[in-house]
Amino acid sequence: MPDPHATPAAKNLPYFLEESSAEVVNSRMGDAVSPRLREVMSVLVRHLHAAVKEIEPTHEEWLTAIRFLTETGQMCSDWRQEYILLSDVLGVSMLVDAINHRRPSAATPNTILGPFYVENAPHYENGANICLDGKGEPMVISGIVTDVHGKPIPGATLDVWQTNNDGFYDVQQKGIQPDYNLRGVFSAGADGGYWFKSVKPRHYPIPDDGPVGKLLGQLGRHPNRAAHLHFIVSAPGYEPVITHIFTPDCPYLREDTVFGVKQELVADFDSINDAARAGELGTTAPFWNVQWNFVLADKAA
Amino acid sequence: MPDPHATPAAKNLPYFLEESSAEVVNSRMGDAVSPRLREVMSVLVRHLHAAVKEIEPTHEEWLTAIRFLTETGQMCSDWRQEYILLSDVLGVSMLVDAINHRRPSAATPNTILGPFYVENAPHYENGANICLDGKGEPMVISGIVTDVHGKPIPGATLDVWQTNNDGFYDVQQKGIQPDYNLRGVFSAGADGGYWFKSVKPRHYPIPDDGPVGKLLGQLGRHPNRAAHLHFIVSAPGYEPVITHIFTPDCPYLREDTVFGVKQELVADFDSINDAARAGELGTTAPFWNVQWNFVLADKAA
Repeated sequence: MPDPHATPAAKNLPYFLEESSAEVVNSRMGDAVSPRLREVMSVLVRHLHAAVKEIEPTHEEWLTAIRFLTETGQMCSDWRQEYILLSDVLGVSMLVDAINHRRPSAATPNTILGPFYVENAPHYENGANICLDGKGEPMVISGIVTDVHGKPIPGATLDVWQTNNDGFYDVQQKGIQPDYNLRGVFSAGADGGYWFKSVKPRHYPIPDDGPVGKLLGQLGRHPNRAAHLHFIVSAPGYEPVITHIFTPDCPYLREDTVFGVKQELVADFDSINDAARAGELGTTAPFWNVQWNFVLADKAA
Repeated sequence: MPDPHATPAAKNLPYFLEESSAEVVNSRMGDAVSPRLREVMSVLVRHLHAAVKEIEPTHEEWLTAIRFLTETGQMCSDWRQEYILLSDVLGVSMLVDAINHRRPSAATPNTILGPFYVENAPHYENGANICLDGKGEPMVISGIVTDVHGKPIPGATLDVWQTNNDGFYDVQQKGIQPDYNLRGVFSAGADGGYWFKSVKPRHYPIPDDGPVGKLLGQLGRHPNRAAHLHFIVSAPGYEPVITHIFTPDCPYLREDTVFGVKQELVADFDSINDAARAGELGTTAPFWNVQWNFVLADKAA
């Protein structure tokens, strides 16, 4: 049986040299490597070596990096993904999202999904209130879903989720919050219109008791996400959009720790102190009124 | 009490944009960050974002990277450091070593320490045999330790270790190999000379049953280290050198999986078939004869 570790010795590969270190490492890849993996690893090794050469780490600094990477992996469990947090706080998640969602400029911009989306939330009729724990300031949100030419998309699906007024998603507080608190799925009407009731979102910290939180601290950064509602809006024949709506008055709007804010996604939140209007809508005054439209790009585009 | 997560909102930091993503992320660092951490993170974020922009990963590829980093951390234990292996096979360990050991060209070059060094190995008289399990082809090694001007360094310390002929270090086979098999500490004589007996080293694979081994497989790379002996040579007033001696006939000499080979560290191994000479040296014919000198740089240099 041939040695599975044997390789043709005829290649006469170069010895390691500081000057050509990345090229030496990349020259080791076999001929049968998938072209995409070859491309990905070549770029990663080149940038990794360039970074090391710029930084010139001491042995102790290198060991600190090894320890950080190890502890970040070891913090991960079925209910905690510390490497996704790292990707988030270094702006990599938003960058990957941006690269994969270069849409016509008229369409609603994407932003990150986040770790708290749950499939199969309850389907509600328009006008329903998704806030099941009664905490927070009442909010009424309405708008239409259209294509990039302004044509309404009847029956478009809007999947929405947000934290409660204590800054936690229902899935972070099983048994404390009602199941599916502040989650719901709505269908736009024949005119593309939707509306529902909820509470004004508030800012909240990402989990910061692990290596990533410690790094944020060392970098003089806070762990807070700007206040937002999440939406996935979809319709047959259109590119689904994973997006947020942000409140305009959140102190962390320009400092969202995962870089999720886009200026185009900051909504107006109007305080309406009109008891009669509140009664018509099935809420109480004062309430926050938000008018927000979604624009979907064609799948072809 | 002030909110520990509050930050001055006056900074009016930029929103995330694909074009300026690294600058946006780096602009978040606080004013009180240590200058070195600021430098290190700035360089890392800049190269990380540049790599992502070149690669343009799909969401699925990004998730594959997250999983790999997570599994690499989770493979680590008190007796296994998978992130050091990753650093090794990507040439980063050798690069950090090179950056930290730019010596006068006359001095013996450094190479990586590896994970199997053990402090407080037995001290032997010159001429002792460090091979305690009797396996392998007999080897006699001798030479002198000098400064860069060729002046002998009496009493220099030589700490040596290697695998046995099955390709394992003693610490990988507790209870199977004798304790301290193929390890020893020697002192150079008044003339700077040293000599001892051992066996010719053989190549061996790094642990390849984890994520790093799987990556090597996908890259068409084998997990083998070129056959070598390890040395740490030190003396008061001189820069200690962590180094290897390589056999010239190893098939993996130009393909050492951790890039540890330097051409200057490949020795001649002469086969001596002389029973009388073998008897004088306390070994058997044929035996391998290796003549190898070490050159230490001044601490000042």
